[in-house]
Amino acid sequence: MKIAILGTGPVGQTLAAKLDSLGHAVTIGTRDPGGTLAREGKDSFGNPPFKDWAAAHPRVQLATMADAAAAGEIVVVALSGAGTLPGLELAGEANLSGKIVLDISNPLDFSKGMPPSLLVSNTDSLGEQIQRRFPKARIVKTLNTVNAYLMVDPGQLAGGDHTMFVCGDDADARRQVGGWLKEWFGWRDVLELGDITNARGTEMLLPLWVRTWGALKTPMFSFRVVR
Amino acid sequence: MKIAILGTGPVGQTLAAKLDSLGHAVTIGTRDPGGTLAREGKDSFGNPPFKDWAAAHPRVQLATMADAAAAGEIVVVALSGAGTLPGLELAGEANLSGKIVLDISNPLDFSKGMPPSLLVSNTDSLGEQIQRRFPKARIVKTLNTVNAYLMVDPGQLAGGDHTMFVCGDDADARRQVGGWLKEWFGWRDVLELGDITNARGTEMLLPLWVRTWGALKTPMFSFRVVR
Repeated sequence: MKIAILGTGPVGQTLAAKLDSLGHAVTIGTRDPGGTLAREGKDSFGNPPFKDWAAAHPRVQLATMADAAAAGEIVVVALSGAGTLPGLELAGEANLSGKIVLDISNPLDFSKGMPPSLLVSNTDSLGEQIQRRFPKARIVKTLNTVNAYLMVDPGQLAGGDHTMFVCGDDADARRQVGGWLKEWFGWRDVLELGDITNARGTEMLLPLWVRTWGALKTPMFSFRVVR
Repeated sequence: MKIAILGTGPVGQTLAAKLDSLGHAVTIGTRDPGGTLAREGKDSFGNPPFKDWAAAHPRVQLATMADAAAAGEIVVVALSGAGTLPGLELAGEANLSGKIVLDISNPLDFSKGMPPSLLVSNTDSLGEQIQRRFPKARIVKTLNTVNAYLMVDPGQLAGGDHTMFVCGDDADARRQVGGWLKEWFGWRDVLELGDITNARGTEMLLPLWVRTWGALKTPMFSFRVVR
């Protein structure tokens, strides 16, 4: 499958590497491909510059947001919460229409100190904002409740015995995404919540996620819905 | 132990019955004890009137909020989110000072339709509001992430293999409450998050809780922090 991943950070890299390893044709979208490849030194997370990662993954293409989205049969948004809507604007409405768009972002607000609060919550969500702005895209919210390593390899934690939530207005898209989570990454417990307003619930898990991270001193955990 | 439970609803009743069965001296607090006992017919949840429950639990006392709080060595607040601060005002600051106050409430706002949103969230929480209003009380937030039956008997679900969060500014109080959860109710996995600002995290789990309830069609579920 041709897959566009918007975002060159650790989450985008981890998803791209996994999907590339599965044989998918992956194009990563970034605002300025030349600038992204020209960056030297470690990024703000302490990771090597993108060009090193790109050299190690020669099949993965790098393109503008618009060219990447145009190339993808599906689009995965791996941008920061604040960068998600601007990034999708650059991708362009026409390049998203009719496509499944995986929204894995969290609207984290670091401006008020740590741990972060949310930029939108309670009576709205980033998932809903995206769906309203791009009504012809088929937004499916998922994967935002674990870190990137667990997104693509849930089995490394408790044999995969934890839960991934999926929501979105398009029931067929939800089911397709649930199937991909299982087939591509090995998720075993995929819980469909319903329409995109359920993103309020999964995004509001993040304040508990960051505090649980603080208590456990590791991000290698996940929530299981025990029933 | 002498335990005050503020609130005569299903949650208060379930906690009172369990703590009474363990041999604790339980006093339930209500705004108007005479009026509570005079109520006929089923309550809004379809349960029998309080007087029937009281007749079946003759050792449990019923008193005003203030008298109940005065009688308790610890106080458990089992009121609605909107009723919690008004109920604690009736209980009286002097009757709470120095005592561990278990806040098990959720600030649910049903005024904007279903599923409910939260009355306070993201940059504040009901737990923090209570602690600010009653600075000499030792507020510990816990038990708000499961229904009443699971609060007092977590073992009926997956043998108790799920997580209960505890937070509060007083570390000794947190530890004592964690011990009570294990000793009284059989909780096995108690996760201490830290100070009362962590209530933002556990209260913001509720929007996901109500949606998971909708998806599973049963409230008999709980979250486990898999790590």
